[in-house]
Amino acid sequence: MAKDFPTRADNYSQWYQDLVVKADLAENSDVKGCMVIKPYGYSIWEKMQAALDKMFKETGHQNAYFPLFIPKSFFSKEASHVDGFAKECAVVTHYRLKASPDGKGVIVDETAKLEEELIVRPTSETIIWNSYRNWIQSYRDLPILINQWANVVRWEMRTRLFLRTTEFLWQEGHTAHATKEEAIEEAEKMLDVYTEFAQTFMALPVLRGTKTANERFAGALETYCIEALMQDGKALQAGTSHFLGQNFAKAFDVKYATKEGKQEFVWATSWGVSTRLMGALVMAHSDDDGLVLPPKLAPIQVVIIPIYKNEEQLAIVSEVAIKIKKDLEAKGISVKYDSRDTHKPGWKFAEYEFKGVPVRIAIGPRDIENQTVEVARRDTKEKSVYQIMDIDLKVLHLLDQIQDNIYKKAVDFQNANTFRADSYEEFKELIEKGGFVLAHWDGTSETELKIKDETKATIRCIPLNNKMESGKCILTGNPSTQRVVFAKAY
Amino acid sequence: MAKDFPTRADNYSQWYQDLVVKADLAENSDVKGCMVIKPYGYSIWEKMQAALDKMFKETGHQNAYFPLFIPKSFFSKEASHVDGFAKECAVVTHYRLKASPDGKGVIVDETAKLEEELIVRPTSETIIWNSYRNWIQSYRDLPILINQWANVVRWEMRTRLFLRTTEFLWQEGHTAHATKEEAIEEAEKMLDVYTEFAQTFMALPVLRGTKTANERFAGALETYCIEALMQDGKALQAGTSHFLGQNFAKAFDVKYATKEGKQEFVWATSWGVSTRLMGALVMAHSDDDGLVLPPKLAPIQVVIIPIYKNEEQLAIVSEVAIKIKKDLEAKGISVKYDSRDTHKPGWKFAEYEFKGVPVRIAIGPRDIENQTVEVARRDTKEKSVYQIMDIDLKVLHLLDQIQDNIYKKAVDFQNANTFRADSYEEFKELIEKGGFVLAHWDGTSETELKIKDETKATIRCIPLNNKMESGKCILTGNPSTQRVVFAKAY
Repeated sequence: MAKDFPTRADNYSQWYQDLVVKADLAENSDVKGCMVIKPYGYSIWEKMQAALDKMFKETGHQNAYFPLFIPKSFFSKEASHVDGFAKECAVVTHYRLKASPDGKGVIVDETAKLEEELIVRPTSETIIWNSYRNWIQSYRDLPILINQWANVVRWEMRTRLFLRTTEFLWQEGHTAHATKEEAIEEAEKMLDVYTEFAQTFMALPVLRGTKTANERFAGALETYCIEALMQDGKALQAGTSHFLGQNFAKAFDVKYATKEGKQEFVWATSWGVSTRLMGALVMAHSDDDGLVLPPKLAPIQVVIIPIYKNEEQLAIVSEVAIKIKKDLEAKGISVKYDSRDTHKPGWKFAEYEFKGVPVRIAIGPRDIENQTVEVARRDTKEKSVYQIMDIDLKVLHLLDQIQDNIYKKAVDFQNANTFRADSYEEFKELIEKGGFVLAHWDGTSETELKIKDETKATIRCIPLNNKMESGKCILTGNPSTQRVVFAKAY
Repeated sequence: MAKDFPTRADNYSQWYQDLVVKADLAENSDVKGCMVIKPYGYSIWEKMQAALDKMFKETGHQNAYFPLFIPKSFFSKEASHVDGFAKECAVVTHYRLKASPDGKGVIVDETAKLEEELIVRPTSETIIWNSYRNWIQSYRDLPILINQWANVVRWEMRTRLFLRTTEFLWQEGHTAHATKEEAIEEAEKMLDVYTEFAQTFMALPVLRGTKTANERFAGALETYCIEALMQDGKALQAGTSHFLGQNFAKAFDVKYATKEGKQEFVWATSWGVSTRLMGALVMAHSDDDGLVLPPKLAPIQVVIIPIYKNEEQLAIVSEVAIKIKKDLEAKGISVKYDSRDTHKPGWKFAEYEFKGVPVRIAIGPRDIENQTVEVARRDTKEKSVYQIMDIDLKVLHLLDQIQDNIYKKAVDFQNANTFRADSYEEFKELIEKGGFVLAHWDGTSETELKIKDETKATIRCIPLNNKMESGKCILTGNPSTQRVVFAKAY
């Protein structure tokens, strides 16, 4: 455990980077842009996966697995898709190495060159719709509601742990529908699932909306998104759900026979969240003393630390501590009892605080006399004395309280950092300060890009169910019917 | 659903291939050697993963994730490892595509050539031990007990769904230890875990043993394996656990300080099972009518099919059927109620039989009058009439019986197809017939390879706790102290 890292105020970016590494969540590997997700970080990701997977299955989806490699020619079939991804593709060109003639190591065997290069998937629409062509004949084969948990590769020049890495882990849903309406309903339903996951599990409030044409997924007619605000006032896109229209069906010739026997192109959606959520989780809640994890995603929810002077005391304390551990576990709480004699209690307190364990229970011989324990919560740092009797129910309640409090704090932060700008001067000042800025925009890509060039702010989304309100574009003064959400973003 | 596929006796290989495709487990993709795992197949794999993952965690392992790409130079560091894998590596050489000058599609951008090629991992020892170097300083950092669920790529010229594919899914454990003894203990413990998984979940009896030097993992000092017998008399290696000695520690310079302050190289193991187990599951138990799935791995354990003539009857039947479904689900049984009016009961019976659903319950108006249902089990095709009262407990018991029976049948098959050969003539006859053949071998690679050339049989393993017995090598007549297990293998 090492706490020698900057505060958020000192250097937010370095604070994040150091925290991720020192809290054993992830580290950079020797492969450029690729990270190693360490066990502690991976166990948080597993909790995210489990919660999302359950929600996907409850909404009728099934998991499947498609190839890692995509033939280059598949890529070219949907024009805007290839434009979006061609510049960041890892390309497999050979399938064999051989001993180097100089006797040092191995070299590529030039005789084993692929006829057609393979792309390591940056996303799987093309390979999946190429399969769907054979799976779909009639309306009876629809809808297809499939999700895939997978690794993907997008070659990035500047990477940051979890937030932007060349390889990342994600899930990608790919659904096929008979009608446009059903596909749009699906895309919106999955945005709801992501919203619920972010709020309920990650304790992360999000804005929900659609992207402008500029910011849409390559190949989508509409991109829905959830946007969260980090503690430095920058926005982070936390999940997207795309209505793809018939673009991929047309590119891969996927038609179905309607009830009336007519041939129609199939309608599509795709939607995904990734290990980027790990970055959002850290940046939204953690503080200058380390991680703050919402109980629903914390690998260890409660740590019990014995206070003792000798072996005899440890034996007495351990008996009670292990009983408490069992009682808590019976309520579904994950508990660690750390009785290591290699470290002092103070060191352990700091360690678990740093790792974001939501509840710490300390117990010594005097506590046992009083039938009490000391309970400290990570989010507020408050300490209380609890009677041992009924401690399982009290801790269960406390974990709920902590989850709620972390969420409430994030909501308050978002509210306090959401502004309205009515002039370009005001807008620039607010954007510089950080936060979501609601402002009128004339609806053109030109204006959007000019604002981006001048301020680095992008339109994060056009909120769903947005209030209609006449106004003038902050840049051009042209008429506008609604405010959109601007921010600088990760 | 399509049953037009060969019997096992007709053409075992085609029977397998057709069954996998027609039962919707997997299909070949348009990417050479790569498969698509379809939802029904993937849900069996998810059950395998869940069971294994639980066992790994119960034995103290944690999951993590390491990069997909391995720098070519890492590969060369362990000599026998690179020899073993160099000929089947997918190589990434470029990181960008660009528009083709002829306006047709995209081509590789030659200006985006990697300085050092990246290998798509065929296994992760090298990239992981390169990380472990930074994780391990002293004996306090040991053991490291990590597992990774991942996709890997080994370029194969001749592929077969699940059994041998260019990309496959697997788990790979990679552990680091302070002593040789502890590492060997770990490798053996994980062989025990695989054995228990195969027997308890897959209903698959296995032989346990070590590989000969020829058949060892590239870089291992000892490879432990479990070997199963398929219905055509061919063996299938179902899982391996490797004692790697200090080979990778030396290659990647991973040392630790002992309690006494001495610098020592770290000891290693690795162990893995893959989607190949899906192939073993199908080939071990299924029959000429389709899949036979052990209840513990069946995505649907019980299907309920209503028998009715009109809407009114369906309503009456459905009420009871749904009540039974809920009762079974409350006992943790996964149940599907198929009340689709697009297919007749007979079609549904055949469909679920083909898909290997262990128990089928049929229920019609007359059954309801009698307060009974018809229960059919997939493994023996026996039908019985059950009282509806207590049906949950009876079905739970039946599922256990089916699991046991499938296992017993496989054990009987293995016993009936395990032979002893005392001369080379006898050996060749038995190998031709199929099955495990126990025979004396003089312990040399030369003899082993000659037998392989002449008979296609390989030494599957030298059984653990093998009975010592003097004899003469079947090929050379040289003295031998024990019989080893030969078979033709997948």
